[in-house]
Amino acid sequence: MAHGKTVHGGLDEAELRDYGLLPQDVLDFSANINPLGPSPLVRQAAAAADLSSYPDRDSLAIREALAERLGVAIDHLLVGNGSTELIHLLARSRLRTGDCCLIFAPTFGEYEAAAAASGAEVHHLAATEAHGFRWPIEEAVGTIRELQPALVFLCNPNNPTGLYLSRDAVEQLAAVSEHGLLLLDDAYASLADSPWDATPLLGNGNVAILRSMTKDHALAGVRLGYLVAQPEVIGGARALQHAWSVNAVAQAAGLAALRDDDHVAAARAVIREAKAYLCAELGALGLAVSPSATNFLLVKVGDGAGVRRALLRRGLAVRHCASFGLPEHIRLAVRVREDCARLVGALREVLADG
Amino acid sequence: MAHGKTVHGGLDEAELRDYGLLPQDVLDFSANINPLGPSPLVRQAAAAADLSSYPDRDSLAIREALAERLGVAIDHLLVGNGSTELIHLLARSRLRTGDCCLIFAPTFGEYEAAAAASGAEVHHLAATEAHGFRWPIEEAVGTIRELQPALVFLCNPNNPTGLYLSRDAVEQLAAVSEHGLLLLDDAYASLADSPWDATPLLGNGNVAILRSMTKDHALAGVRLGYLVAQPEVIGGARALQHAWSVNAVAQAAGLAALRDDDHVAAARAVIREAKAYLCAELGALGLAVSPSATNFLLVKVGDGAGVRRALLRRGLAVRHCASFGLPEHIRLAVRVREDCARLVGALREVLADG
Repeated sequence: MAHGKTVHGGLDEAELRDYGLLPQDVLDFSANINPLGPSPLVRQAAAAADLSSYPDRDSLAIREALAERLGVAIDHLLVGNGSTELIHLLARSRLRTGDCCLIFAPTFGEYEAAAAASGAEVHHLAATEAHGFRWPIEEAVGTIRELQPALVFLCNPNNPTGLYLSRDAVEQLAAVSEHGLLLLDDAYASLADSPWDATPLLGNGNVAILRSMTKDHALAGVRLGYLVAQPEVIGGARALQHAWSVNAVAQAAGLAALRDDDHVAAARAVIREAKAYLCAELGALGLAVSPSATNFLLVKVGDGAGVRRALLRRGLAVRHCASFGLPEHIRLAVRVREDCARLVGALREVLADG
Repeated sequence: MAHGKTVHGGLDEAELRDYGLLPQDVLDFSANINPLGPSPLVRQAAAAADLSSYPDRDSLAIREALAERLGVAIDHLLVGNGSTELIHLLARSRLRTGDCCLIFAPTFGEYEAAAAASGAEVHHLAATEAHGFRWPIEEAVGTIRELQPALVFLCNPNNPTGLYLSRDAVEQLAAVSEHGLLLLDDAYASLADSPWDATPLLGNGNVAILRSMTKDHALAGVRLGYLVAQPEVIGGARALQHAWSVNAVAQAAGLAALRDDDHVAAARAVIREAKAYLCAELGALGLAVSPSATNFLLVKVGDGAGVRRALLRRGLAVRHCASFGLPEHIRLAVRVREDCARLVGALREVLADG
């Protein structure tokens, strides 16, 4: 779980220095963030936040706004320092040494880091390239029945493959997870072309929903996420959360973001159009692009590490996928079309050089 | 360690609502913050922070600035989401079930919460009112020799008593802590009337220094603190820290704060003068005030809970000290003189009513 161990997108200041670059000089396609940035309302709210007083330890205002929106009581909600904090709190509260944890893979690295840190025995249900990175749901149902995992991690839409399981498929998985908790991380749902609402799945008490607000509201810098689950699940995680982990700026920004759905809707439209452009251009370059339901693309380039370095030298950061077990792939966040055009041009050069 | 369990200063939004108050209506003497608020430079830097990009996971810029200032290598530094995160990381990394942890008490509640959460056996070395809340150092030396604690927590100046041990006294304690780590939390040193520099104590490899930047730079809202220690101590804590726990606003504000020592010096002058006024006025009201080296006062009022409630009804928040085992005391942060005059007036009314 150490930040020194898990690989993620986003810029690394120390690495950029080696290339003689400053963060502001780099177009970042490595982090899957709303390409419009934070809304003006969110920026204003963040700038007006009280820096000197302790933040509310219970994030009460955000939880109330979420409770109203989601139709749950506030004891079903925990706000965290990014969804990463919540993943670790959940793993620490639900997993003991030797417990079984099942992860739908390849996926976000923090699940495994958190499960391993709790001493759990981690199993993967791996989607393969040969099957278009689709998980075999019937086989998955059988695996859950057999292993009876204490905790199941499912990222939907999945990072980095872009696969988006249907509600029906997730319901099948939830139905057999009665011996543990199915954590549905839908960080990228609200940026998907056609999001479906996972909230009704909470009716199954063994489902918890994790939502990042750093992707759809472009708040990766301030760290904000929330967990929706039964009060006993919330209570277990909350008991391990240190005081004031969600700062005042994050709370102010998050509250404003919840009042600004239009901004996310506008981003979806931009992403849809730029993604279509990017898919077509990457295809024209002869690259295989996995079909993605949301705001990033998994692209097979051969030498992922080399392509990444060559692009970074040109001021374009992409995510190499070796840490996902996919060394021949890179992951590209969909940015505005103009940025995508720069990326396509640079990729054309890099591939011609290679 | 749950934020639901440990009592702290600062305003509680849910409680304020019961009194029909909004946070902005309340003068907060319950949190021990620089009364001048954040410096203009810090406010500007915070407002200019990039909300949408991931924060640097290594807080590299702050660590470099600190390394230069303190004369240590950057592998001796860990930046945290407030010192509270670092206290919990340190307890988790240094304490196993049954280990002995010694706490100089009464003091900040997170030490005990963190030690207890790690399953440690917690011992207290308690300062008593009868001895002016001074710890008997020779006895403390004997206790450390006897118990050989894996971790010792010492807050200096101490919250809530205001006692400030001399360098010589702390050196005596460090000298006998060779079986474990002495954590010296000097959160309130830079707001003390006559701070002494604890950095040279790091020459003893069993000493770690914890510094909050939320008090002296009035950044309680953004959460920022750092730990200075040997690389193996830093590495152990860092391995348990989840990614991006220190957000971009905190990093930007902290970097600006480190360039603005004048602001803290100005605060010290304001505090010194207002504290003298407050001590004299509280004495005139017949209240016993413990001598404090720093920016808060421990005051014996009899019914601490009742006085706190009566003041809160008047829009003034103070810290009741029952959670420190001192139900007859309240703790007052020194604010600017005008605010202190309001507090004295309100206290006069409350005591006359009582």
